[in-house]
Amino acid sequence: MGRWEPNARGRLEVAALELYAERGYDQTTVAAIAERAGLSERTFFRHFTDKREVLFGSGMVLEEMLTDSVAGGAAEASPYDLVAAALEQAAELLDGRRPIVTRRQAVIDAHPELRERELGKMTSWADALMTALMARGVEERLACLVAQTGIAVFRVSFEGWARGGATEELPAIVHTSFADLRSATVTPSR
Amino acid sequence: MGRWEPNARGRLEVAALELYAERGYDQTTVAAIAERAGLSERTFFRHFTDKREVLFGSGMVLEEMLTDSVAGGAAEASPYDLVAAALEQAAELLDGRRPIVTRRQAVIDAHPELRERELGKMTSWADALMTALMARGVEERLACLVAQTGIAVFRVSFEGWARGGATEELPAIVHTSFADLRSATVTPSR
Repeated sequence: MGRWEPNARGRLEVAALELYAERGYDQTTVAAIAERAGLSERTFFRHFTDKREVLFGSGMVLEEMLTDSVAGGAAEASPYDLVAAALEQAAELLDGRRPIVTRRQAVIDAHPELRERELGKMTSWADALMTALMARGVEERLACLVAQTGIAVFRVSFEGWARGGATEELPAIVHTSFADLRSATVTPSR
Repeated sequence: MGRWEPNARGRLEVAALELYAERGYDQTTVAAIAERAGLSERTFFRHFTDKREVLFGSGMVLEEMLTDSVAGGAAEASPYDLVAAALEQAAELLDGRRPIVTRRQAVIDAHPELRERELGKMTSWADALMTALMARGVEERLACLVAQTGIAVFRVSFEGWARGGATEELPAIVHTSFADLRSATVTPSR
């Protein structure tokens, strides 16, 4: 108990996702997750506050990445390009964790409360993007518009990718979606 | 009891919104709404299935309007233009009911469960727009992308309008937002 365990966080994450899929999220206890991972409950609580945080803990890491990406973008980059680049970077991180990410998504899709929490996470990402754009001097209304539509583009891309079994590369899908929206808006028909 | 009452639906709506604001949504009963409106509970239940439907009943009407607008759009209109036009039309209807719409929004903003239901309504609108685009032959992925981003543009516009006391004209704000996103994407910087 309490000693350092190699890759405890990763083992707990895999164990939790297995159990959420097998028994359902509501029926899974922290004790069962720890047991499946061959770790103690105390070790679980050193890494996660509760069983929900196993699913949403990495959201904050990605949110900070989005903020940093927008802040570090080239001076001449447009708000749209900054948001697209930030979300492509987030896509790369998710793509590198495909087995975890797709299992996680299946658990969330099966549970209304978790779906709502996931929507809340996306709202928080949009707010972070908006704040980062405004810190670069982008006017509030435009920052909000580009951040929210950027998140919508990302969500469409991500859901299509996860539903399709994550066989394609997520960053490429996100990139294509931002390009497609650009093309879709550029029409002389109105 | 049970007789026809002039504008019963509208009276019940106003009474409900008053009580939701005064006492809170959870503390308001159907009996209280009916009493405030000077109508019977039986009359209430001829118009609404429950107190939540007072807030969300008109969502279906708007959803059908969106579908009809996309279906009836000019043959040469782009998916982006069709979605923009449909949501501008919805904006006109909402703009015509400003006092009701802004009070409703204040009630929803104050209540997490209602906010989630509102998000669900927006998802349903996006699905309706996507289906209507696909019925015109738009490829699924593009239909999904344009529908979801369109709803994001609408939501940003609507929330800005409602928060600002609805002093501007919502259809004009929606129109400007779609134009602004178009401008934002058209940059040669990448």
